Amino acid sequence: MWHTMNLILLFPGDFTGDGKVLLTGRRAEHILEVHRSKAGDELTVGLAGGNIGRGRILDLAGGSAELAVQLTQAPPEPVSADLILALPRPKVLRRVLQTITTLGVKRIYLINACRVEKSYWSSPFLSEESIREQLIIGLEQARDTMMPEVMLRPLFKPFVEDELPGIISGTTSLVAHPGAALECPRNVSGSITLAIGPEGGFVQYEIDRLRGIGFTPIHMGERILRVEAAVPALLSRIC
Amino acid sequence: MWHTMNLILLFPGDFTGDGKVLLTGRRAEHILEVHRSKAGDELTVGLAGGNIGRGRILDLAGGSAELAVQLTQAPPEPVSADLILALPRPKVLRRVLQTITTLGVKRIYLINACRVEKSYWSSPFLSEESIREQLIIGLEQARDTMMPEVMLRPLFKPFVEDELPGIISGTTSLVAHPGAALECPRNVSGSITLAIGPEGGFVQYEIDRLRGIGFTPIHMGERILRVEAAVPALLSRIC
Repeated sequence: MWHTMNLILLFPGDFTGDGKVLLTGRRAEHILEVHRSKAGDELTVGLAGGNIGRGRILDLAGGSAELAVQLTQAPPEPVSADLILALPRPKVLRRVLQTITTLGVKRIYLINACRVEKSYWSSPFLSEESIREQLIIGLEQARDTMMPEVMLRPLFKPFVEDELPGIISGTTSLVAHPGAALECPRNVSGSITLAIGPEGGFVQYEIDRLRGIGFTPIHMGERILRVEAAVPALLSRIC
Repeated sequence: MWHTMNLILLFPGDFTGDGKVLLTGRRAEHILEVHRSKAGDELTVGLAGGNIGRGRILDLAGGSAELAVQLTQAPPEPVSADLILALPRPKVLRRVLQTITTLGVKRIYLINACRVEKSYWSSPFLSEESIREQLIIGLEQARDTMMPEVMLRPLFKPFVEDELPGIISGTTSLVAHPGAALECPRNVSGSITLAIGPEGGFVQYEIDRLRGIGFTPIHMGERILRVEAAVPALLSRIC
């Protein structure tokens, strides 16, 4: 799949010593084919979980790329919001995980809801490997290195009753709900927990449970946005 | 393609008299298969360019749907922003036109820029029919009826010199540019013109031309967002 690799994400296993890395496969191809780089060019790189910096291409041969890297800069600040997201359709899930990662969210709970189709929970896109792939694409797009955590919670009630109160403790907790009385607040300070329902929204029972533990329902106007647009629109307004 | 039809968009040709409409094809299928509706059910409907309201299903037979409609409510307010968008890759273009429509933008200029690949301009997705299809999907998602105008401007310089000064006259005109000195302003009052570059951004020459006619470059932080996320994030913060 085509995407913009604004940063080449490095892992400890890539290092060969003396600040050098040897890349093969997807990343080497990207350097050759999308960046159309040559020896001597510099690219933005970052170590997963660590600093970002520059990588100078030493050699491009046989489908691999050798770079000399200097990692001198901290990655961008995370956004101060955790996301509780009703599991979207598999095809949407992949894109939305990229988008959420790009926006700088570091904790994502994918939860069940009445309007989440049961079959979504058996999608291969929920495998650890597939999720990780989307997170890496999101980090590469955003020039970030800090991998988000994605937690799957296929049971709504125990999650909301037993786990969610701890997650939202000390945060401003908001649930996006078309038709809510309150407009989405702007530029909220401190930590935020944002819950977003499935296509069709949370049902009233779910909204009531979320209100019951301290969530405030908020709306973004009369227009109903798809989840891919709702996530950046909400985070950008709230944070 | 799957999408949420939160409103069934009606056209004058659908009306058979006495406030009744007869739908076939895509919309009838959607009512049957996605909404799983039956006679007597009510759906949200809206007349293209007009009011929204309710449609009661009178009959579902032979792949068509007959509805009695009442159109009593104004559609949602448009957003007070025009968008100048460097033409995205064809696959992205379709989704982004839907998103822009959903957000309530009513004038969209698709323009050329140095980092727009020439081949994008010959994409079949730029046909009037294909664009219209995406706009309809966006309206149906947002429960809107007011079709946006999409203008194609494949020549950057004459557009910016001859036409854009008139478009931005009397508006706050902003160009999203990673690395700009000014952070994206919040909750701007009055009319806005927002310019968004291609993947990789506008080149310095283009930024200079836009500044030259009155655009202010603004940034959304260190993170680089894909256009699909940048559009809702920027509009939601600015408007």
